[in-house]
Amino acid sequence: MAVGLSQPGNIHFVNGVQLATVTAGIKNGLKPDLVLITFEPDTVCAGVFTRNAFCAAPVTVAKNHLAQTSPRALLINSGNANAGTGVHGLNDAEQCCALVASAISCAKDEVLPFSTGVIGEDLPMDKIETGIKKLPARLEQDAWVQAATAIMTTDTVAKACSRSLQIDSAEVTITGIAKGSGMIRPDMATMLAFIATDAAVDREWLQHCLETAVNISFNSITVDGDTSTNDACILAATGASGGRTLDGSCGNSAEFQKAVNEVFIQLAQAIIRDGEGATKFVTVHVESAVNIDEAKNVAYTVAHSPLVKTALYASDPNWGRILAAVGRAGLDNLDIHQVSIYFDDVCIVSKGGRDPAYEEAMGQAVMSQEEISIRVILNRGNEQATVWTTDLSYDYVKINAEYRS
Amino acid sequence: MAVGLSQPGNIHFVNGVQLATVTAGIKNGLKPDLVLITFEPDTVCAGVFTRNAFCAAPVTVAKNHLAQTSPRALLINSGNANAGTGVHGLNDAEQCCALVASAISCAKDEVLPFSTGVIGEDLPMDKIETGIKKLPARLEQDAWVQAATAIMTTDTVAKACSRSLQIDSAEVTITGIAKGSGMIRPDMATMLAFIATDAAVDREWLQHCLETAVNISFNSITVDGDTSTNDACILAATGASGGRTLDGSCGNSAEFQKAVNEVFIQLAQAIIRDGEGATKFVTVHVESAVNIDEAKNVAYTVAHSPLVKTALYASDPNWGRILAAVGRAGLDNLDIHQVSIYFDDVCIVSKGGRDPAYEEAMGQAVMSQEEISIRVILNRGNEQATVWTTDLSYDYVKINAEYRS
Repeated sequence: MAVGLSQPGNIHFVNGVQLATVTAGIKNGLKPDLVLITFEPDTVCAGVFTRNAFCAAPVTVAKNHLAQTSPRALLINSGNANAGTGVHGLNDAEQCCALVASAISCAKDEVLPFSTGVIGEDLPMDKIETGIKKLPARLEQDAWVQAATAIMTTDTVAKACSRSLQIDSAEVTITGIAKGSGMIRPDMATMLAFIATDAAVDREWLQHCLETAVNISFNSITVDGDTSTNDACILAATGASGGRTLDGSCGNSAEFQKAVNEVFIQLAQAIIRDGEGATKFVTVHVESAVNIDEAKNVAYTVAHSPLVKTALYASDPNWGRILAAVGRAGLDNLDIHQVSIYFDDVCIVSKGGRDPAYEEAMGQAVMSQEEISIRVILNRGNEQATVWTTDLSYDYVKINAEYRS
Repeated sequence: MAVGLSQPGNIHFVNGVQLATVTAGIKNGLKPDLVLITFEPDTVCAGVFTRNAFCAAPVTVAKNHLAQTSPRALLINSGNANAGTGVHGLNDAEQCCALVASAISCAKDEVLPFSTGVIGEDLPMDKIETGIKKLPARLEQDAWVQAATAIMTTDTVAKACSRSLQIDSAEVTITGIAKGSGMIRPDMATMLAFIATDAAVDREWLQHCLETAVNISFNSITVDGDTSTNDACILAATGASGGRTLDGSCGNSAEFQKAVNEVFIQLAQAIIRDGEGATKFVTVHVESAVNIDEAKNVAYTVAHSPLVKTALYASDPNWGRILAAVGRAGLDNLDIHQVSIYFDDVCIVSKGGRDPAYEEAMGQAVMSQEEISIRVILNRGNEQATVWTTDLSYDYVKINAEYRS
C-alpha cells in the first residue's frame, strides 16, 4: 500500500558504526525484532524525544543516560513499547542496558534503550536476555537495512537513506533508518529514527543540527494526530572519516546541515508514504501567514480533518471541507475573502469562494493522482509551513481495529 | 446504525408555533427538504451560530436579521449548505427570506434562513421558490417530527424532544428538533437545532438561558472534530402559555433552565447516537482537573483520537491509547503517576500504570457494550467536564468517501 516507496537501495555504511539484528520472539513471529547499534569510542550523540507526558520507560532511561555519557550502544526492540508499565518498566529498561553493557564491555549508562509496539505490557525479559547474548557476534558495518527491517511494526517497507559529501579532503557519509506508520504526529521528535555520520561534529552543534533537521522533517508529518509515547530520534557522529570538526562556524557546516536535512526529510516522508492504510501522499503547504505557528496550525488542521482525509481517499475534490478546516483553525480576524486554495497548480478557491475559472474535472484530475499538493494561501503575512500527511482509508480503520487481535 | 436511538415519540406542540414541510427537490430525491417554522407576533428569539471563520451565507444573514428584529419565521433547507458561495450565496439567502416574507406577509428581515448539505454549490433558487409557495397552506402545530425529518442529511433517525413544566398556573412546553451526524464538533453552536417554548421569557435572559444550555449540550459533543460552516441553534419563546415572564430572578426560571437543559442534552446526545458510522455511544468524563478548559481539552483529545476511536469500534480495551492521548493533551506539569482511568466502574489505570487488580476480561466486558463511559481522573484540581462521542468505523469512512458520489 505504500505510496511511491520502494525498498531502500544504495545505503552506505558509516565508519565507526556496527549493527546486528536477531529474532528474539518479542513480536510472536519469525521476524527479527531486536537490534544492537554500536559506536566506536568518542562518538558524539544528540537526541530528541517525545513530549507526550506519558512517555515510555525507555524514553526516560535513554534521556537520563544521554545526559550523563557518550553512548556506545543503542538497543532497540519492536513488538512491545514498554509504555504504561510503571516502575517495573523502568527497571526492565535499565536491565536491558545492563545486559548489553555486559555483552559488549561498556558501562550500563553508555547504552540507550528504545522500544516500539503495544503499550501496557511488560517486556519479555527472558527472550530479550537470550537475544542480547547473540547480538555481539553478529555486529557488522553493512546491516543498516536489516536493522531498519527489524524495528518495523505496522510498517510495510523498511526506511533507510544515505547521503555523502566531501568535507575538506574527507569523504563523509550520513546514513539513517526510521520506523513508524501509525500513532504518527511527532512532537519535537519522531517515532524512532537513528541517523549516524562519520563526520567529526562538535557535540553542542550536533544537537542544534539535529533539532533544525527534525523541525522540518519529523515534526512536519502527521498520519493521525496521535503523538506516540515512544518517539525518539538519535543523531550520532563518530568522527571516523577524519575530517575537520564541524561546529557551525564554517561553510562545510552549512553543507553538512543541508545533507542531514535531506536524510531526515526523506525518512520522514517515507513514514508518511507508508502511513497506515495510506493510498495518497499529500503535501499541505500554507503560504503568506502572519507567522510560522499560524501556518503550521492551518496545515495541521487541514491534515488532521477526517472529512478532508476521507475525501482524499475517495479522490473527491471536495474543497468545501478544506475551506471549513481552514475556517475552524481559530485564526484571529481571518478574512475569508482573502483566502485562495490550489490543488497542485489548479486554483480552486479564490477570494474565499469557488474560483470562476474552476471546473470539477480540473480538481478531479489532480485528486486522482497518488501524490497531491494542497496549497492554502492566507494572504495576510510572509510566513509559510509544509506538512506531509496521508488519506483516511478503510485500511486505516482495519489496521487499528485489529491491532491487538 | 444509530446507538440506542428510536424514532421520536410524545412530542408536544408549542402554542404560537406552526410548521410546514415540502419536497422541493433540493436533495435530488423524493424526501422533504424544505421547512418553514412560523412564530406568532411578539415571540422572543435567541440564537448562537458557528464560529467557523468560513461561515455560510445563511448564517451571516440570520445573524444580521436576528440582531435587527424579532423573527416571525425560519426557513430551513437540507441538501445544500449555501457555503463557500460568495456574494452570490448571500443574495440567494436574502432572496429566500424575501420569498417567505411575501408568502406569509411579514418583513424580509423577520425571516431567518438556514441551510445544511453540500458545501460550494449554489442554491437551486427556482426549486426553492416553487417550494416556498406551497408552504403557508401546510402550516400546522403538530408537524415537529415531519420538520425534524425534512432537515436531515446523513442522519438516519429524526431528532425531536419535548418537556413540560408548570409555571404558576400555566402549563409550559419546550419542544425542539435537531439534525447532524457528521462534521460535528460544534463551537458555541450546533449543526442545526430549533427549540421553541410557549413560556414568556425576557429576551436578554433567553439568550443567557440558550448559551447555558448549549455549553453543556451541543458544545460538549464531537463526532469527528470538524466544526461545520453552518452550525446554528435558535431558541424561541412565544409567551402563548400565558404564564409570568421569566427573567432569571425567580425559582421558576431555574426550573425552566433545567427543563431547557434536558431538551438540549437529549437532542445533542441524539446527534452523537446517530453519528456517522457510529456503533458506540461514548461518554468521556474528565475529573479533578485544574480548570474546566483543561478538563475539556483532555476530554476532546481522547474523543478525537483516531486510535482511541478505532479501538472503541473494535471493542478493544486498548487503554494505552487513552493514556497516550491524555499525555499529548499538552497539560503543564502533568504528573502521570497521579492519573487513573476507568471504563464504567472498572479501574484500568491507577498511579499512571495498569491497575494491579485489572484483568483484560474486565475491560473487555465493558468495551463490548454499546454504551461506554471512559473516566479520566487527573487528581490535580476540582473541575470536571463531559464530552460525548462515537467510535470510528468502516462506515464513517464509507459515508464520507461516498458523500458526493
